[in-house]
Amino acid sequence: MTESLSECGKSRSEAFTVDLSSFGIREGISETIVSTGLESPNAAPIGIIVKGGRTFVRLFKGTHTWENVFKEKHLAANIVYDSLLFVRSTFFDLEPSEFDYVPARGLNFPVLKEAAAWVIFECVNLKDTDQALVADLIPVEAGFNEANRKNLPVPNRGFNAVLEAAVHATRYQLTEDEKYIELIRSYESLASRCGGENEKKAMKLIYEVLGL
Amino acid sequence: MTESLSECGKSRSEAFTVDLSSFGIREGISETIVSTGLESPNAAPIGIIVKGGRTFVRLFKGTHTWENVFKEKHLAANIVYDSLLFVRSTFFDLEPSEFDYVPARGLNFPVLKEAAAWVIFECVNLKDTDQALVADLIPVEAGFNEANRKNLPVPNRGFNAVLEAAVHATRYQLTEDEKYIELIRSYESLASRCGGENEKKAMKLIYEVLGL
Repeated sequence: MTESLSECGKSRSEAFTVDLSSFGIREGISETIVSTGLESPNAAPIGIIVKGGRTFVRLFKGTHTWENVFKEKHLAANIVYDSLLFVRSTFFDLEPSEFDYVPARGLNFPVLKEAAAWVIFECVNLKDTDQALVADLIPVEAGFNEANRKNLPVPNRGFNAVLEAAVHATRYQLTEDEKYIELIRSYESLASRCGGENEKKAMKLIYEVLGL
Repeated sequence: MTESLSECGKSRSEAFTVDLSSFGIREGISETIVSTGLESPNAAPIGIIVKGGRTFVRLFKGTHTWENVFKEKHLAANIVYDSLLFVRSTFFDLEPSEFDYVPARGLNFPVLKEAAAWVIFECVNLKDTDQALVADLIPVEAGFNEANRKNLPVPNRGFNAVLEAAVHATRYQLTEDEKYIELIRSYESLASRCGGENEKKAMKLIYEVLGL
């Protein structure tokens, strides 16, 4: 990485500036799908946190993302509007064919073909706690995929319900607390009323994963 | 309106075709802010429903939107990513200065300055029921506002929580059922954890309106 920076004669701080808000990453938690893994690409839904001007991420121990970030100190946040992709990447490995590779700091970094945009971050100030790794994020490269921006995203309560159901499904897997099943069922009803085909498929997949 | 169509020598069906999905309006319910009212512009959050190839809308009786559509047979669906604007237009009249006017069928139709895009529909096959008006929608004009598309929207559970809270707040106003207050409080917590400044302001406004 340092080689690549030396080659273009720029110091690290001059190498790249990006207005994160133009990529949609702003105060609060932006729900993205994070891709990592230079050798074997991996993707999982992860929130990019912006709080008081600091951009950081919390990664749970034992996950592929955690392992890859620990080793490679980079991650890509992919902006995605496909509820089924959020659910698939929550519970399953995506196909290698679903990744593109973009150059960043002399690396070929995996991003999602389906992303409307992606931001590659360097992970610094890694803090390892009992359950999670917290890392500050410095953007090093970013891009839009104009083809995926063609169809404007519009707020859809069905899409939102799928995100909530996926969050509660992972909590159910960890705790087996039945209250999460109740929540998931109520979000299923919302997804079915307000969502499209994709939201229905996504909820069906959550039900399959949980054996409902 | 017929005059304007005659002027350009096109039949109604040839006058305009729009791929609604490129404006984000697709199968399911798209949460837009609908503007109406040629003389006195009005805006309110309303879902545009697409089901089995049919695009339609359900408008509750006694609302300004219902009155305007009944009279003028047109509405504009504005694609908006501002949670505070959703809440403000749920409970209050927007300022006249928040509207732009665009030409459509010889009319100067009000749309929202804040919209990333808007689609003006003609409302046909109006069916009046006890509580609501159902109208089929035919797109007659549409446009993007590139300045408002600059910042990519990213899924945010805080933004989504504000939409849910606004829905439950209107239900509470109609029924005074305390179960809605419980739901609103839980969405407030989500908006506060995952949202930005706008989501915090929007939830504060909902609390003020409900006297919480």
